[in-house]
Amino acid sequence: MSALKYAVFGSGSWATAIVKMLCENLDEVGWYMRSIYTKEHLLKEQHNPSYLSSVEFHLDQLKLSNDINEIAAYADVLIFVIPSAFIHSELEKLNVDISNKTIVSAVKGILPETGLLLGEHFHENFQIPYDNIGVIAGPCHAEEVALERLSYLTISCSDKKKAQQLAKVLESHYIKTKTSDDVIGTEYAVMLKNIYAVAAGIAHGLGYGDNFQSVLMSNAIREMKRFIKKMHKMKRNINNSAYLGDLLVTGYSTFSRNRMFGNMIGKGYTVKSAQMEMSMVAEGYYATKSAFKLNEKNKKKTRLPIINAVHEILYEGKDAKKVFLKLTDKLD
Amino acid sequence: MSALKYAVFGSGSWATAIVKMLCENLDEVGWYMRSIYTKEHLLKEQHNPSYLSSVEFHLDQLKLSNDINEIAAYADVLIFVIPSAFIHSELEKLNVDISNKTIVSAVKGILPETGLLLGEHFHENFQIPYDNIGVIAGPCHAEEVALERLSYLTISCSDKKKAQQLAKVLESHYIKTKTSDDVIGTEYAVMLKNIYAVAAGIAHGLGYGDNFQSVLMSNAIREMKRFIKKMHKMKRNINNSAYLGDLLVTGYSTFSRNRMFGNMIGKGYTVKSAQMEMSMVAEGYYATKSAFKLNEKNKKKTRLPIINAVHEILYEGKDAKKVFLKLTDKLD
Repeated sequence: MSALKYAVFGSGSWATAIVKMLCENLDEVGWYMRSIYTKEHLLKEQHNPSYLSSVEFHLDQLKLSNDINEIAAYADVLIFVIPSAFIHSELEKLNVDISNKTIVSAVKGILPETGLLLGEHFHENFQIPYDNIGVIAGPCHAEEVALERLSYLTISCSDKKKAQQLAKVLESHYIKTKTSDDVIGTEYAVMLKNIYAVAAGIAHGLGYGDNFQSVLMSNAIREMKRFIKKMHKMKRNINNSAYLGDLLVTGYSTFSRNRMFGNMIGKGYTVKSAQMEMSMVAEGYYATKSAFKLNEKNKKKTRLPIINAVHEILYEGKDAKKVFLKLTDKLD
Repeated sequence: MSALKYAVFGSGSWATAIVKMLCENLDEVGWYMRSIYTKEHLLKEQHNPSYLSSVEFHLDQLKLSNDINEIAAYADVLIFVIPSAFIHSELEKLNVDISNKTIVSAVKGILPETGLLLGEHFHENFQIPYDNIGVIAGPCHAEEVALERLSYLTISCSDKKKAQQLAKVLESHYIKTKTSDDVIGTEYAVMLKNIYAVAAGIAHGLGYGDNFQSVLMSNAIREMKRFIKKMHKMKRNINNSAYLGDLLVTGYSTFSRNRMFGNMIGKGYTVKSAQMEMSMVAEGYYATKSAFKLNEKNKKKTRLPIINAVHEILYEGKDAKKVFLKLTDKLD
């Protein structure tokens, strides 16, 4: 169907879901994963041992490798789905020329080492022009892709044709897509929503109810709008699925590991013990620090009461109950 | 605390919650209820027999009556919390002069007989000036008020001072308030959200998952914005709690009877049998007809794919599964 070759980098649940989507349309999909065990298991059992293990793959459709350079050399379109905290060390292994390739971010955070979005990082460090940089945004829980429940994706790229091409190979009877030119805004939204999901989890853990959650989400989308506008001013409807929809699916869903992580904090776990309880990385933890730092750099700081509250709890050792009591007066 | 006398008309869960809020601040609250049984039960057991029965009242704070005129004569501020379908017949009993009183709507729909909001109805039929008309909007499930879980209300009145006065008597350690001058917009929001909650319920009943729900809600708030803008154009932030927050608490909460009603429809119940199963009135059922009719009157119709879909299912006898399959192509 497509003359272009696609590859996914990463083997978590979202990476696995994207490989599944691509397999609906392509004869072959490149798939890089760090873990030798995961690769061996896939070869033997046709499914990812750790994530979305109900999804069966056809091995003849997969080009699997533990060598990031092999897959980077193979593909024209490189889709990165590695947790933001590990991206930097993975990219350090890259030594093939990727300057002519299209880079797609399905990463849910910004690189903690540089404070850059994945696209910005590739632009600055690999000289990829912005027209060759895309973003895959939800709202989309990987778990529901596994179940083939109808889901909508937003594909962003300043090159409209590239966005449409990518949208096309992701579409199927359970995936609908739309395109957008707001690469920076959608990537920030993907990151910010995880912070708000942590906040929703903390609120729930502290015993706040549905009435409060809805006020929290209503304030969160307004805060997200202010944050993104400050970072990249352009015309966007913050209520589109890629922003509001993604916030809601993460903030309200029981699948969300960020919400789960926040819930444990609200219930009194320390950050460390909550992280140890969970085998998955809660992206919102890193995102909180990154978003807070980015705002610190602003000459005139954006008003971010929710992000600041989560930061106080996760990084400044403050008591969740007290912080939220103060926060309730800043919401409306 | 207040020289003004307040009264609540209605005895459902939201009416009971508002009486509870007022009792936190006032020495006496007027309370009209149609049912003699409910009044007798309250006098004997200090709680509403049918709704929020965990809430204990102090009888010396309540002026109870089954005579709407007695309570209307007593109070300066009349808060109506009667299901929209019964409002008209209740108001026909009114024969005392209320032209100098403040009328507050906590009704969750428009009067099916006239297609008017409660405020509009009082303005047209009782010559109440718009400055004396207010609205109490959520997001607020009555059930959480009973539990004294932190909730936020928006009080709208074009007379700012009146809005502040009313806000003040509703506030307590578990109720925060804000005021607004968008009487018409907030009242439409209260009504429309119930339709979207029915839609959310139908989707759930049909087997759509969280990913789809978030897309549905993201489209719903954009549709709500278009609808309200057409009805009453003014500057408003549709993401404020009274609009988006209220939509979310109703669309996502398990307390919502509209969602429950929709869920039964999605699962294959007929409208009639779903209504019979539920002892409460699902306001969204009536709201769907009213909103659809209002839009029919527009010379240039507003694009309302969700409301139209729910109308097709509830009033045009169309198959929910087929209607939603078509709807999924209209959302993004």
